[in-house]
Amino acid sequence: MKVNGKHYRTIWLNANGWAVDIIDQTRFPHEFETVTLWTPDDAAVAIKDMLVRGAPLIGVTAAYGMALAMRQDESDEQLTQAYDLLLRTRPTAINLKWALDEMMKTLGPTPRSQRADVAYARAAEIADEDVAINQSIGRNGFEIIKAIAAKRKPGDTINILTHCNAGWLATVDWGTATAPIYTAHDAGVPIHVWVDETRPRNQGASLTAWELLHHGVPHTVIPDNTGGHLMQHGQVDMAIVGTDRTTAQGDVCNKIGTYLKALAAHDNGVPFYVALPSPTIDFNVVDGVKEIPIEQRSGHEVSHMTGRTSDGRIETVEIVPKGSKVANYAFDVTPAKYVTGLITERGVIAANREAIARAFPERAG
Amino acid sequence: MKVNGKHYRTIWLNANGWAVDIIDQTRFPHEFETVTLWTPDDAAVAIKDMLVRGAPLIGVTAAYGMALAMRQDESDEQLTQAYDLLLRTRPTAINLKWALDEMMKTLGPTPRSQRADVAYARAAEIADEDVAINQSIGRNGFEIIKAIAAKRKPGDTINILTHCNAGWLATVDWGTATAPIYTAHDAGVPIHVWVDETRPRNQGASLTAWELLHHGVPHTVIPDNTGGHLMQHGQVDMAIVGTDRTTAQGDVCNKIGTYLKALAAHDNGVPFYVALPSPTIDFNVVDGVKEIPIEQRSGHEVSHMTGRTSDGRIETVEIVPKGSKVANYAFDVTPAKYVTGLITERGVIAANREAIARAFPERAG
Repeated sequence: MKVNGKHYRTIWLNANGWAVDIIDQTRFPHEFETVTLWTPDDAAVAIKDMLVRGAPLIGVTAAYGMALAMRQDESDEQLTQAYDLLLRTRPTAINLKWALDEMMKTLGPTPRSQRADVAYARAAEIADEDVAINQSIGRNGFEIIKAIAAKRKPGDTINILTHCNAGWLATVDWGTATAPIYTAHDAGVPIHVWVDETRPRNQGASLTAWELLHHGVPHTVIPDNTGGHLMQHGQVDMAIVGTDRTTAQGDVCNKIGTYLKALAAHDNGVPFYVALPSPTIDFNVVDGVKEIPIEQRSGHEVSHMTGRTSDGRIETVEIVPKGSKVANYAFDVTPAKYVTGLITERGVIAANREAIARAFPERAG
Repeated sequence: MKVNGKHYRTIWLNANGWAVDIIDQTRFPHEFETVTLWTPDDAAVAIKDMLVRGAPLIGVTAAYGMALAMRQDESDEQLTQAYDLLLRTRPTAINLKWALDEMMKTLGPTPRSQRADVAYARAAEIADEDVAINQSIGRNGFEIIKAIAAKRKPGDTINILTHCNAGWLATVDWGTATAPIYTAHDAGVPIHVWVDETRPRNQGASLTAWELLHHGVPHTVIPDNTGGHLMQHGQVDMAIVGTDRTTAQGDVCNKIGTYLKALAAHDNGVPFYVALPSPTIDFNVVDGVKEIPIEQRSGHEVSHMTGRTSDGRIETVEIVPKGSKVANYAFDVTPAKYVTGLITERGVIAANREAIARAFPERAG
């Protein structure tokens, strides 16, 4: 997607042909800076310190970290060390382990002298696969937007609400929830996005708003409390959100607050879609509310807020009285009955067990 | 309610017997300071600059402002000037106008030489009436809490979720939504309150948390996104919120986001109560969603956040990218069908036209 008028991915090869450039996402939304990764250690730090975030992007960064390691030294020891180093950075990130295992599977049997070349090629493939999946999600979601637009006057703006950041910054390009939005916008359909701020980490206000702004998609940042009121007054044509995990029956585990928006959409007849690459479907889990444990994160994310002062410094301020307890549940589960459809790379699927199994027979077992 | 172990109202006569002391609420949640109002101009500034806020407290402050004016000069000119000065401070505050009109009605026919004494007496009455109404709300709401507690094991904590600040800081004492909570707590029932942060102005995190903390009521501040998840997992026994305006059929206009919590309560079988002094019922409005215009406030409240830095300074930081639009709807409307009951000074009333008219026949017409 575009930044300052130029097309970017979130990760790409440096002009020298072997180092790896990324966007430093810790500086959002106030600064845009790219960073060059020269070594596997640089890649590990970028993941650990969250210069890169989002499951797909973390996986690709780790894959390139392995390529940087092989460029230094193509030995078996180096291979194992780099794998361990990169795996330790975010122990619970499933995509990270998947990408590293892919690299090991490819590099293990490869003759030493060819490991660097093969590693770069496989990392590039993993990145391109992510882009291809998101483009498919974009095309499939665009059909829904076109169907909504067809019922409206030509040139009418379609208002889409989204929560958190399932945007291109979390992937290599396009994003998941944002892919249909960018696809429609690039095709000339007038789109306006209501961007939920997404407390407590504010990924909507700091990431989604930033990427829509730079790509030129009209949007408005709103407090998380606002979406219900907008839906009551016909100001939302559809909602599209991402998901961290989707169950076999179509329950959706996503950023905390998603469930409240799904309830409001249901109450007001607003279609509520979830965009996802199919690997996020977990066929081992059925009832999301009962079975998915919800991560609790540091209360500091709730009690403190970081932003830019009027004189340009980045400052953190405390917003809860000393002595008050805070709680910080990271995700919630939206029951399938409130999900209008799942936008996947294989098409738009109803959020129920039969439809999901039919679409992914090789995994549903 | 208590602050640092001592009982306070939000407004009281100074030890000198005639000046008026208030709490400077602009310094919350990090500082507790009282301010003395010596003149009607001091009272006007306190209202205008929001050292005091909340409809009942604004009304009482204006009433005492009239008393301060009469102490300076009991003339008709002074009476009219003070009325105009105080009315201009918050032009849309209905309670402000009501209190000033009450004072005029009382003072107009009063002989000049007695106006100061009569003004202080009437202002004190208005303050005491507010306290009495809230105590009744507290007693009536406590019955609901007792009924919930009766179904639980003795000593079990009752978890109550609230949104925004309908607390004692918005009134003279007790608050509205908080009155049942304080009443139950003071009676020894174990209560824990989930305090919605309440973006964008954070009245939950900065005011409700502060007052519960000082009165010693266990509580936890949560992002507004969290309540639905807690209700899905049985961690909320009831919700109690306040209201700015209740329609003849029981629709509730309250701080933005209230509607989303009501939907989640409904979806999970959690009782959702609204506490209100009956003057907030507007018998001229029936369908709240269709008829009540929703105030839009400055986007600055969304794009900027104020808090305390690690070295103790109060600082404002920007949290939305420059160039992104923001929207700030102040209230939303919860349809009556999602309201379990209205806790009023005359008892707990079902949220429908017949029940409300039956409880207030003299106003329903």
